[in-house]
Amino acid sequence: MRRQVRIGLIGTGKMARAHGHAYLTAARFFQLPVEPRLAVVCGSRERAETLARAFGWEETATDWRCVVERADLDLIDVCTPTGSHGEIAAAAVGAGRAVLCEKPLASSGQQAEAVVRAAASAGVLGAVVFNYRYVPAIRQARDLIAAGRLGDLRHLEFHFLQDWLTDEARPMSWRLRAAQGGGVVLDLGSHLVDLVQHLVGPVGRVAAIVGRSIGERADEQGEPQPVDVEDHFQALVEVAGVPGTLAASRVASGDRCSFGFQIHGSRGSLRWDFQRLNDLELYLEDEPALQGWRRISVTRPGAHPWAEAWWGAGHGLGYEETFVHLMAAVLRRLGGEEAEIPTLEEGLRCQRVLDAMVAAARGRTWAAV
Amino acid sequence: MRRQVRIGLIGTGKMARAHGHAYLTAARFFQLPVEPRLAVVCGSRERAETLARAFGWEETATDWRCVVERADLDLIDVCTPTGSHGEIAAAAVGAGRAVLCEKPLASSGQQAEAVVRAAASAGVLGAVVFNYRYVPAIRQARDLIAAGRLGDLRHLEFHFLQDWLTDEARPMSWRLRAAQGGGVVLDLGSHLVDLVQHLVGPVGRVAAIVGRSIGERADEQGEPQPVDVEDHFQALVEVAGVPGTLAASRVASGDRCSFGFQIHGSRGSLRWDFQRLNDLELYLEDEPALQGWRRISVTRPGAHPWAEAWWGAGHGLGYEETFVHLMAAVLRRLGGEEAEIPTLEEGLRCQRVLDAMVAAARGRTWAAV
Amino acid sequence: MRRQVRIGLIGTGKMARAHGHAYLTAARFFQLPVEPRLAVVCGSRERAETLARAFGWEETATDWRCVVERADLDLIDVCTPTGSHGEIAAAAVGAGRAVLCEKPLASSGQQAEAVVRAAASAGVLGAVVFNYRYVPAIRQARDLIAAGRLGDLRHLEFHFLQDWLTDEARPMSWRLRAAQGGGVVLDLGSHLVDLVQHLVGPVGRVAAIVGRSIGERADEQGEPQPVDVEDHFQALVEVAGVPGTLAASRVASGDRCSFGFQIHGSRGSLRWDFQRLNDLELYLEDEPALQGWRRISVTRPGAHPWAEAWWGAGHGLGYEETFVHLMAAVLRRLGGEEAEIPTLEEGLRCQRVLDAMVAAARGRTWAAV
Amino acid sequence: MRRQVRIGLIGTGKMARAHGHAYLTAARFFQLPVEPRLAVVCGSRERAETLARAFGWEETATDWRCVVERADLDLIDVCTPTGSHGEIAAAAVGAGRAVLCEKPLASSGQQAEAVVRAAASAGVLGAVVFNYRYVPAIRQARDLIAAGRLGDLRHLEFHFLQDWLTDEARPMSWRLRAAQGGGVVLDLGSHLVDLVQHLVGPVGRVAAIVGRSIGERADEQGEPQPVDVEDHFQALVEVAGVPGTLAASRVASGDRCSFGFQIHGSRGSLRWDFQRLNDLELYLEDEPALQGWRRISVTRPGAHPWAEAWWGAGHGLGYEETFVHLMAAVLRRLGGEEAEIPTLEEGLRCQRVLDAMVAAARGRTWAAV
Repeated sequence: MRRQVRIGLIGTGKMARAHGHAYLTAARFFQLPVEPRLAVVCGSRERAETLARAFGWEETATDWRCVVERADLDLIDVCTPTGSHGEIAAAAVGAGRAVLCEKPLASSGQQAEAVVRAAASAGVLGAVVFNYRYVPAIRQARDLIAAGRLGDLRHLEFHFLQDWLTDEARPMSWRLRAAQGGGVVLDLGSHLVDLVQHLVGPVGRVAAIVGRSIGERADEQGEPQPVDVEDHFQALVEVAGVPGTLAASRVASGDRCSFGFQIHGSRGSLRWDFQRLNDLELYLEDEPALQGWRRISVTRPGAHPWAEAWWGAGHGLGYEETFVHLMAAVLRRLGGEEAEIPTLEEGLRCQRVLDAMVAAARGRTWAAV
Repeated sequence: MRRQVRIGLIGTGKMARAHGHAYLTAARFFQLPVEPRLAVVCGSRERAETLARAFGWEETATDWRCVVERADLDLIDVCTPTGSHGEIAAAAVGAGRAVLCEKPLASSGQQAEAVVRAAASAGVLGAVVFNYRYVPAIRQARDLIAAGRLGDLRHLEFHFLQDWLTDEARPMSWRLRAAQGGGVVLDLGSHLVDLVQHLVGPVGRVAAIVGRSIGERADEQGEPQPVDVEDHFQALVEVAGVPGTLAASRVASGDRCSFGFQIHGSRGSLRWDFQRLNDLELYLEDEPALQGWRRISVTRPGAHPWAEAWWGAGHGLGYEETFVHLMAAVLRRLGGEEAEIPTLEEGLRCQRVLDAMVAAARGRTWAAV
Repeated sequence: MRRQVRIGLIGTGKMARAHGHAYLTAARFFQLPVEPRLAVVCGSRERAETLARAFGWEETATDWRCVVERADLDLIDVCTPTGSHGEIAAAAVGAGRAVLCEKPLASSGQQAEAVVRAAASAGVLGAVVFNYRYVPAIRQARDLIAAGRLGDLRHLEFHFLQDWLTDEARPMSWRLRAAQGGGVVLDLGSHLVDLVQHLVGPVGRVAAIVGRSIGERADEQGEPQPVDVEDHFQALVEVAGVPGTLAASRVASGDRCSFGFQIHGSRGSLRWDFQRLNDLELYLEDEPALQGWRRISVTRPGAHPWAEAWWGAGHGLGYEETFVHLMAAVLRRLGGEEAEIPTLEEGLRCQRVLDAMVAAARGRTWAAV
Repeated sequence: MRRQVRIGLIGTGKMARAHGHAYLTAARFFQLPVEPRLAVVCGSRERAETLARAFGWEETATDWRCVVERADLDLIDVCTPTGSHGEIAAAAVGAGRAVLCEKPLASSGQQAEAVVRAAASAGVLGAVVFNYRYVPAIRQARDLIAAGRLGDLRHLEFHFLQDWLTDEARPMSWRLRAAQGGGVVLDLGSHLVDLVQHLVGPVGRVAAIVGRSIGERADEQGEPQPVDVEDHFQALVEVAGVPGTLAASRVASGDRCSFGFQIHGSRGSLRWDFQRLNDLELYLEDEPALQGWRRISVTRPGAHPWAEAWWGAGHGLGYEETFVHLMAAVLRRLGGEEAEIPTLEEGLRCQRVLDAMVAAARGRTWAAV
């Protein structure tokens, strides 16, 4: 019988559902060395109990500080609003727990560094939920770049455009409060920067414009409240010597969730967008008369490491499988197997780029990372 | 505490996994009046046990005849190769069990009719896994047509193109044997015809060409075996008076799984393809200078009946959620709630069109349904 | 100094403009063995004079019978409504003139055959304006098929969808009168069938539905007039043994002018649509992990026979250049050079398919060509 | 009889062909108040004579200084390599000639200013060939923005990606020599910046990276020569207060000529790309359940000012018609009619942005325009 990994989940929002579902699904579709147990979910009583009933969490709790201290837990999963990620993650690793933290790892490089140090000194495993790395097409993109199929990279363009804030009637939420780490830079910027760094390399310098289009929204009582976070940014970056642009927005009217990129190289180029997450577009400098951007359906057995588990060629996966693949990797690591996970160090490196971006925008200057 | 629905699953292939996962996921993401219990899975011993371990089926069995007789089961789920659907489904409803049968309901209209009659006389619920009806964009398409947004329909085009048989090295399987109901007409044709009838209405007459491109494949021992089923068809149809074409193939090189349609009407038109399953393309005769095909991301809360349960605007669902939505509907029905399901009668009506198509192709003539 | 080819143009509509422009442009962008002279344009006086002024036609005429008899003319260009094509073309070749006739060559196979016979007995050159053959991407498509890059063809789908008749307020015109050869079968069907036969081979048998959605329209005085031609058809065909579907429409709401096809073969597949006329989509069974539909921008010098004359990679051509390329080929032939042109025999072969389609639809049966 | 406008063309390259063709075609398809006469073409003797024969230029010349002084000419058309634009244009307007100058107007803001001043003091008409303004879809885009259909603009992204320099075997040319004004900033940057300013407003500040990927190419003798111009840039801009990114490249492997943009506003958004030049993509905050990016085929009579002259709905125009529309506007102005043309002042404003971009890149700083 397989060893159990007992999980304590902090948080009760959408991500808490995505994570809980992913642990259970991973155990069902993949041969894992350990069995995940949904031990305890922590949040406000009512929400925690609802979640426990639906997903089968064995216990509920309301104080995360107690949860992270529990010696019977093997993994603390942090799904709270961004503002508390750093503190909870640091406490968890400090208490000797392995931790899986929703992105971004913290609200600043300084906070993130504290987590990294605490984990290193405790010698525990830590990972950040950069789940888009686990899209099959992204995996293939990275493999192609690593194998040199694109040659020398020439320039790149990455974007993460959403439009849920276009509607001015949309109420206040923690995602619109700086104190809770709610802005676009931490939210979408962290995914964007991680993906750039995952695929291409470290961001070296950055210039940016960070802006807020809508400065006030009604709270739940209908009272107007100030919005103190940005809702879009545009940036110029140098990534491992390669120039490029980044853009993120929550007011990109028409783009519900367009997370994507283009990377051009001397021997080929790549494009991807989350709107067609199962496809990778590739251009190769092959037979001259037949050169063209090709759209690869990254769904066939053989095409990516998770294909055998799923439905067959052309049967696309959705957003939630990115979590399933990530959770499977984390569980493998906790079971002593090899598996690539997004590390705390990578979470920190991401954070430093975000800090530099904000500093550059404020100072109307370039900033080195 | 909710009443339980005890499920007996016949079959251990990919669909058995999709169904098992769907019951569990439906119970987690939707508020259902009953709780699904994975009571028994039936198939060859080894495969059944593997499945039981991964998904938590409480028991295994090897003889489906015993399973369908068990009075402690509330629902028999038929996931076997097509050739046995009709027999198992008829036996199950005959024994007073509700049944959920993978498509097509049977291998011929005659067989399908037997199931329908048996279910009617037993007074039990029956449903067919026409899961594509549960794609959010398909639901919206049907609503738009029903609301008259397209006006009078003018013509239509439906296709289901796959290419997994392009590779001649691909070995024999039950899907290539007529005795097991393995051809394209029953496999893809059933989805195609159901979707046409679901969206537009009854197919009235049909002319067709049915063909086989590759007549021999190696079995598991490497011995050449004759393939006795078709691998593509093209058809001309009249659907509720609307002319159109159908096409299906397993040798459509380049199209991994392109299931889609176009419907043109006097006031608007629709297009959809499974390759972008979350999107619906709509054209309306609206503001003249701005008319154009629009791509709707059918993912927003409010856009479809399942949106609240999932991830938010622009976060697409995958193939497996079609089963989740269907299983949720079946469970609701078993729990006494209203919910639309694909009925056995609809399964029969589909079968009659497929029979007519084959007859028309053989006779080189038009055939009425 | 180059020999002149003196042209007599019958007709003053849009096509008369397209043809006149094409002769002049061909002479400017291509090295031709002869010089086209716009000698005489024939039609109602006012329209002919307007056209003469704009394009530099040296003379005008009002009686086409006189024009085709003129011994000083080298080429008669027939741009009249379809109903008179056959008569004028037959008279022209009968009088010993070379002829370039707008498609279709006639209103029936019988008429078309008369033209072919007259041309053969006079020993003069004849050509039909199947201008889409001169789209660079179509030329590449044909070359790829001819070179066997697709392997054995499996099935095909061709369509020509327009929507200009969706608007019921649109008035009567010759294109809506059977007596003038105005229906969809002759208009769009001729292009469709020629392209199928040009790329794949002779159509062997056909079944079809031919329909009319709107039966009455106002004439110029606002009086309702019956429309006695079809506005759409759907057909099932066998083309050189390959099964396929055809569809054409003038009421395909949303599709302004979607002329396109898909051809699937054992080693590769092709797609094209006039909406992106400079692109060809190709799928090849190449490197397994990287297989995908590729979009070739057929614009580079080297990619097609006319590229050097134009603007460079990625700078697309438009509709009118199809005529320029065709006129250049006709002028080359008249100057004694080799050049491929759509022959009268091909025009006849197309006509016979159209006749068979109408007969099949009326008889609700298959018809052999 | 209409007054003639006698044109002197300086230059014999591709643009000389495009311009000559455009004058003739404009006169044929549009009702213009003046008649263009191709009076003299100036360049090396052989090339000028070839062009004269093909297009009907009445005379040839070899010294542009003599040509611009000729009192019998009404319009000097400058089609030389970029490095000489400013000098020739200044001389032409100084001599009292109207001038139409290929983009960019000069190699620097200082030079461009000299042209503007000379034209103002001579009181003659001047225009710059920002031909993309004359794409029908661009015209509609501008009208929609001007009419407020997008609401407040939130952010933008403009790019002009080519890949003709990806091939390292491609030889040296004037486009790779700084002395002749050959780099990407002047070439593609001028189109890019003009389009941004034409659609949105003045660029206020800029940060940029300007780079060169390939530093050496063979000349016609096969001798390696240094390339001293950039082949790509990325920039961050503020345009009338709206943040955005710009990118241009000649080494964007796979993108033959992708000139395009996205503009997001509070009430709607726009996208366009030259690869589908006849289409405009529009998103509007309209009926919530049906919102989606729509693709408008900007080809219908009524949709744009030039539609009546051409071929009808869905029949796309090509690159060369942009020149036809521009030349028609210039000829109208010379004939005393109203018509919008790209002015010398706009050419100058564009140049200043390009100068600022280069300064910003060199200084690794933001630069104000």
